Amino acid sequence: MNRVALIVAGGSGLRMQTAVPKQFLILAGKPVLMRTLEKFSGCEIVLVLPEQHIPYWKTLCKQYEFAVPHTLVAGGATRAESVFRGLQCVDDDSLVAIHDGVRPLLPQSMIEEGFRLAEEKGNAVPVVRLSDSIRLIESGISRAVPRDDYRLVQTPQIFRAGEIKHAYRNSSADMFTDDASVFEADGKTVCLYNGDPINIKITRPTDLIFAESCLC
Amino acid sequence: MNRVALIVAGGSGLRMQTAVPKQFLILAGKPVLMRTLEKFSGCEIVLVLPEQHIPYWKTLCKQYEFAVPHTLVAGGATRAESVFRGLQCVDDDSLVAIHDGVRPLLPQSMIEEGFRLAEEKGNAVPVVRLSDSIRLIESGISRAVPRDDYRLVQTPQIFRAGEIKHAYRNSSADMFTDDASVFEADGKTVCLYNGDPINIKITRPTDLIFAESCLC
Repeated sequence: MNRVALIVAGGSGLRMQTAVPKQFLILAGKPVLMRTLEKFSGCEIVLVLPEQHIPYWKTLCKQYEFAVPHTLVAGGATRAESVFRGLQCVDDDSLVAIHDGVRPLLPQSMIEEGFRLAEEKGNAVPVVRLSDSIRLIESGISRAVPRDDYRLVQTPQIFRAGEIKHAYRNSSADMFTDDASVFEADGKTVCLYNGDPINIKITRPTDLIFAESCLC
Repeated sequence: MNRVALIVAGGSGLRMQTAVPKQFLILAGKPVLMRTLEKFSGCEIVLVLPEQHIPYWKTLCKQYEFAVPHTLVAGGATRAESVFRGLQCVDDDSLVAIHDGVRPLLPQSMIEEGFRLAEEKGNAVPVVRLSDSIRLIESGISRAVPRDDYRLVQTPQIFRAGEIKHAYRNSSADMFTDDASVFEADGKTVCLYNGDPINIKITRPTDLIFAESCLC
């Protein structure tokens, strides 16, 4: 099946305490988002950016002579709306890998394994085990829960484009923090594959330091 | 109240894929564990190490002219048994901060805030919010759960020594992954305080790279 990467980069950079949104911060010599797109250079790429960031992105592309082909789409007010708009550019018969623009350390092997599993099972969602203990808060009271029963979810989350579009049309997608939850709320079963602890989301200044040292 | 730090460093280093256990790896010029102990230099320190690592630790202390005073205790077969043995050196009337030997990036402000809260409320357990989505696995099937309802647990976890000793004597401590769970299983209520994302547990090679860059 045709493979499409849908990269979503809507962050405003509040947690980074920087004026520049985190996807545009420089990571080992080039913007984070360019490093992310380069990971998918074998796929058709759709990039969703907040409308107000599009001119800046175009300037960056010229400045860095960024040559990875991609289709630009203006995002919406929420992550869910941005994903939904991006999906409109993707053919129903494709497999679409929805990926956070601020996960530039994604190993190539995860992309391969994810598409392979999605070809076979219809979808693929990467998860990792917890290395910390975990507590559940209910009515303001916390209690320990068994960490082996939980998994942290990463991206790329890969779906048949027609199915994830259907899910986005039929669910209150804004209630959810990732695409797998939207897909599941549409009555589908999610298939898990192994993520990688290195595949972090760059949300804090220390994450950028970490990413920098992984690339050097 | 008297403040004691109980540092537990029992790891075998399997996940680091190194022959040297992770607590002894060199972080910006000195062993991880020395950096951890230095954070508590204002407290009485009890260090629990696997018996077979004690001679090596003593050699390292000489080699690095490590001057932070501490009492050495031989650990047991499990983390819980090691904590239990360490607690035998702590006076019941003290506040004891139980801390992972492989969390050398602990901010000083967390130690202060933790002891302050434990003085006031009787205990203090640091937690952070999740930046990834989370799934719960039940009978082999995973489903999304709301990440805002969960907290990841860090150390130092601070207790009245008499109370946490009581909990360790009365619970099947080996069933649990941290001290707060043992304390809770003894019928006590856990008080949470804000941890810090920088306070990572060094369990993988990439964690060491991260820690290195935070210290440089």
